[in-house]
Amino acid sequence: MKKIAVILSGAGVFDGAEIHEAVLSLYAIERHGASWHCFAPNMDQHHVINHITGEEMPETRNVLIEAARIARGNIQDICDLNPLDFDALLLPGGFGVAKNLSDFAFAAADCTIHPEVKRVCQQFAEAEKPAAYLCIAPALIPKIYGPGAQGTIGTDPETAHAFNQMGGEHIECPVHDFVLDQKRRILTTPAYMLAGSLSEAATGIDKLVAELVKIA
Amino acid sequence: MKKIAVILSGAGVFDGAEIHEAVLSLYAIERHGASWHCFAPNMDQHHVINHITGEEMPETRNVLIEAARIARGNIQDICDLNPLDFDALLLPGGFGVAKNLSDFAFAAADCTIHPEVKRVCQQFAEAEKPAAYLCIAPALIPKIYGPGAQGTIGTDPETAHAFNQMGGEHIECPVHDFVLDQKRRILTTPAYMLAGSLSEAATGIDKLVAELVKIA
Repeated sequence: MKKIAVILSGAGVFDGAEIHEAVLSLYAIERHGASWHCFAPNMDQHHVINHITGEEMPETRNVLIEAARIARGNIQDICDLNPLDFDALLLPGGFGVAKNLSDFAFAAADCTIHPEVKRVCQQFAEAEKPAAYLCIAPALIPKIYGPGAQGTIGTDPETAHAFNQMGGEHIECPVHDFVLDQKRRILTTPAYMLAGSLSEAATGIDKLVAELVKIA
Repeated sequence: MKKIAVILSGAGVFDGAEIHEAVLSLYAIERHGASWHCFAPNMDQHHVINHITGEEMPETRNVLIEAARIARGNIQDICDLNPLDFDALLLPGGFGVAKNLSDFAFAAADCTIHPEVKRVCQQFAEAEKPAAYLCIAPALIPKIYGPGAQGTIGTDPETAHAFNQMGGEHIECPVHDFVLDQKRRILTTPAYMLAGSLSEAATGIDKLVAELVKIA
């Protein structure tokens, strides 16, 4: 059975991993005959957002501990992620990718990636193992793969521009499909960058995961 | 389009709504052509559990605000839930049902149900609108429907015994199926009371939701 490492960034679209995308990804991984293995950085979240009001809450939460809610406790510190043990990588979206795994939400094209996340993603790239980045997660791709890496990140002009500014080549893609950078073995799908519903996000995620597992 | 009200009890299996069951339910509701509408009580959680260690954390969290993470903010206070506006009801499982929506986790057969949750569930029952209870959520059924109500709640003898003690009639059911109390229009499936994986839980949930939407 092929093993897919999944990096989560918390639990909630506005300050962590997008929950629907994460669960749909784990579900698709199982349905396509592979197994999922969750990881997250052991660090404080950038902040905590009240998901009703959108306002910041006076709290501190840990990315790994919150991500464990999505994984039912079945999760490990990303420091313990050795890409040699896995066949492919997958990152769901959610603002956690742009606020915790990186500072893309604040620095855009000048962003930096959490060192352990960068280490892991680069090792998957160097080992030429396929990697899937959903929703906003493709924002990490240019700084991992270098100039020319192809991916889709929705239709927001500023976000796509930042992707290109970092050296990536942005490709528009509908929500029910995915983009494959064949040379680099990178798979991307817009998910909630474009999706109007859970089932819309699911169509692209399912198609992407089927291909990810196939080529892993 | 048929409208399904969904009651969440937080966000995380050990102190709130079971996230996989909740997302799989919303996904199934969409796929079967209905729309979902999330609600939760505006109250403090019984406690906050670290989902890695299983230990209690020195924090206070609000059920409605945490449940909003699963609903991407698209959620309302259960006080605003008028069963007349909906065609059916669905409660995913998770310890939140037994710790926040009721005290079944502590009082077993002597449990009481949160007054607004009880009001809503009883109004769906009185209106003879179908209602689905997943995983541990069937623990609420006997106190809502009275003696003779049929449901499944997994194979743990103590839990099933408590269900019968309250006047329910427990029926064993495999994870990939559901139980229908035809007279009372109650649908139950074991989900993570028995499931060893997300896709196993999904089989029963999908089957149950298909029937729920059909008879709604």
